[in-house]
Amino acid sequence: MKKVPYRFFLTEDQMPRQWYNLRADMKEQPDPMLNPQTGKPATEEDLYPVFCKELARQELDSTTRYIDIPEPILEMYRIYRPSPLIRAYNLEKALGTPARIYYKFEGNNTSGSHKLNSAIAQAYYAKEQGLTSLTTETGAGQWGTALAEACAYYHLPLTVYMVKGSYNQKPFRKAIIQTFGADVIPSPSDTTNAGRAILAEHPDTTGSLGCAISEAVEKAVTTEGCRYVLGSVLNQVLLHQSIIGLESKKAMELLDEYPDIIIGCAGGGSNLGGLIAPFMQDKLLGKADPRIVAVEPASCPSLTRGKYAYDYCDTGKITPMARMYTLGCGFIPSANHAGGLRYHGMSPILSKLYHDGYMEAVSVEQTKVFEAAVMFSKLETILPAPESSHAIRAAIDEALKCKETGEAKTILFGLTGTGYFDMTAYTSFLEGNMSDYIPTDEDLKRGFDGLPSIPGIQ
Amino acid sequence: MKKVPYRFFLTEDQMPRQWYNLRADMKEQPDPMLNPQTGKPATEEDLYPVFCKELARQELDSTTRYIDIPEPILEMYRIYRPSPLIRAYNLEKALGTPARIYYKFEGNNTSGSHKLNSAIAQAYYAKEQGLTSLTTETGAGQWGTALAEACAYYHLPLTVYMVKGSYNQKPFRKAIIQTFGADVIPSPSDTTNAGRAILAEHPDTTGSLGCAISEAVEKAVTTEGCRYVLGSVLNQVLLHQSIIGLESKKAMELLDEYPDIIIGCAGGGSNLGGLIAPFMQDKLLGKADPRIVAVEPASCPSLTRGKYAYDYCDTGKITPMARMYTLGCGFIPSANHAGGLRYHGMSPILSKLYHDGYMEAVSVEQTKVFEAAVMFSKLETILPAPESSHAIRAAIDEALKCKETGEAKTILFGLTGTGYFDMTAYTSFLEGNMSDYIPTDEDLKRGFDGLPSIPGIQ
Repeated sequence: MKKVPYRFFLTEDQMPRQWYNLRADMKEQPDPMLNPQTGKPATEEDLYPVFCKELARQELDSTTRYIDIPEPILEMYRIYRPSPLIRAYNLEKALGTPARIYYKFEGNNTSGSHKLNSAIAQAYYAKEQGLTSLTTETGAGQWGTALAEACAYYHLPLTVYMVKGSYNQKPFRKAIIQTFGADVIPSPSDTTNAGRAILAEHPDTTGSLGCAISEAVEKAVTTEGCRYVLGSVLNQVLLHQSIIGLESKKAMELLDEYPDIIIGCAGGGSNLGGLIAPFMQDKLLGKADPRIVAVEPASCPSLTRGKYAYDYCDTGKITPMARMYTLGCGFIPSANHAGGLRYHGMSPILSKLYHDGYMEAVSVEQTKVFEAAVMFSKLETILPAPESSHAIRAAIDEALKCKETGEAKTILFGLTGTGYFDMTAYTSFLEGNMSDYIPTDEDLKRGFDGLPSIPGIQ
Repeated sequence: MKKVPYRFFLTEDQMPRQWYNLRADMKEQPDPMLNPQTGKPATEEDLYPVFCKELARQELDSTTRYIDIPEPILEMYRIYRPSPLIRAYNLEKALGTPARIYYKFEGNNTSGSHKLNSAIAQAYYAKEQGLTSLTTETGAGQWGTALAEACAYYHLPLTVYMVKGSYNQKPFRKAIIQTFGADVIPSPSDTTNAGRAILAEHPDTTGSLGCAISEAVEKAVTTEGCRYVLGSVLNQVLLHQSIIGLESKKAMELLDEYPDIIIGCAGGGSNLGGLIAPFMQDKLLGKADPRIVAVEPASCPSLTRGKYAYDYCDTGKITPMARMYTLGCGFIPSANHAGGLRYHGMSPILSKLYHDGYMEAVSVEQTKVFEAAVMFSKLETILPAPESSHAIRAAIDEALKCKETGEAKTILFGLTGTGYFDMTAYTSFLEGNMSDYIPTDEDLKRGFDGLPSIPGIQ
């Protein structure tokens, strides 16, 4: 086998020019989104008040296998893509594993994460439609940063509802979003009915993604020329994020490699869904059979301990309902430094694939995650985001299993971003002040009790 | 001319395997460092108490043109190098300039800067010599982070004296250095004679690089098995940083380009000296005649308003004396957010080249710098460090001149790092609270009055 470089970049002309729509190859489709008013499958028109038209179309398109990436989006991609596929030689050596560990590093842009891939697309389509402003939510802050970058480029005013815990823990993350010109509001806030309702019930809450989504959607549908955009969970987002997997697969082909195990952290599923897309295609078409592993925090275990049920995507129950693995939209996860993984649900596409046995899931505790993060940073000279470090933890665990068995497996994981705005969390870990939290069955039951009842369905 | 990609990477086998020693091609050598005790030129042996042996050798080697990079250092370089050469298409378009703007981006590693290039080399040689600990200073924090990364890798304990202003302004920068396992002490501190002396005279000082150097050197020479390492100014550092210029030149050759203007920010000169090295070689050998422009802050203008004189490299006057452009080692610059450029002197090599007319220098005010930084970030999706943004400011100014004259010049500038730990400064700028400070002639006179008197020399 030829010597693999540390960091491998596709050239510009090797970059994918189409996104891949995983649904086109799924044996069974995810159950349709339901209109919360009618309980019927949502139509494109139902989505127009919330999403711009092309994105509503992409959201419901389950048949077009490849979708051309518009040239202006490709232009923007070229500013920070392709991202490198990195061989973790130092990590392999330190672990003494026969496994070959690769990671696709999406942190080399100012959003510090893969989020820019979809932010650019969504801002572009909004601008094309002549919209005059956008709203969104952000948890850890990467999505808010990415969308603020994209909106700055397209001159679109943006309001970001930022989960209050992150807003307070990460003043510099807030500042960078403001640098790109966006308004940042801590959520829950008194600017929306949804926010006011949560505050009345839980005045001291540090918020959640579900709640911030409610506020952002409410603001969008009540403002002329405004739409809402979301950085995860949705089918359209997984579509845009397929660029990660397509680049990874192409790069591995050029290196004569194919992963035996593919690992990604999973909050709403945007990174994982994008990374695995073309490999899952191989699996669905019977061309290969890699293991695909979702890694979630033990504090917010939607796949490993959630229910596969219809639920709202937000806490305020104003979005369409999706069938997905969920902890219940009323579940408010404990403070966890991986803010980007504190979401009650999971992408309907990934939920369906998991339900049908095409992928595995593990949950990990945050102190174990930060152990892996600090080790990784010292060896690979990248300071990983806490979210991304969930994947590192699982990759290390798999590499250590290979050490025991002597198997030289090829492991690919997604390093979704950097941790420069997470130093409070790192300091808390280094000082021994970080605790693990695992919800009790009682905690989960409270969440499940809030699942909607849908006549004839659940 | 062929279409140039946005981001161009050399392949691993195109990467330089030797550093280039600019002194070997200089018509006249910089004046020798002087031993502060004897007033005589410092010998290698004079340097042994402070530097490890190989680095003392490199410091005084003015004849070896190319020095092989040891294989273990190349291995580390491959983890984050080559760095991309980026064509700033979006910036060009926004400016409406016919100029072609390229930048060499050194921020894609966790130190967030070019500093890792020399940190790895210095930690490697220290480890090879069997040293058991290192000390250093850091201003903005990039050098401290880079050296902490390198020391983590080589398992060398490290104490970092961090300029107090940065220590207080950048708690997360401190945290990242600690994450890599180093001790961080705000300077001036009461842990050294030099620190205590400064504190006695200026109890409220926010410190300076010169003072932090004094403390780190004192700590090194009074600790068994310990040496001091410095991230800028020194000849050895410029040698290691030549990797930046060598990669840039090679990449531009492959793109059929050659810069008409090369621009770099200048604090101690490490980035600038590295970036320009092979282009300056062409100039010295009469092969090409690019303009070479150093950009410094108006608040600390060593080249544009300093004296070319022998001075100490530190405030405590314990280092060898070097002939360089200096504001006087007692000059304490005003608070300026570009902490990495707050140094009273300038690399002796660059000082000599500037003195002999091989390069130009400009000074810029920080509000103008941040204007450029915010504009750049929105267009190029990279949030630049304040230090690096000095070069952006000058590059934009040159590109605007091209717009006036219609000349399609090729501009290359060094983007030395990212600003993720500088959000306090960005916020201050965005909120309109940033002020410019330009030292008066009186301020400068006080600094010059402290220049050493050396019998027979000055």
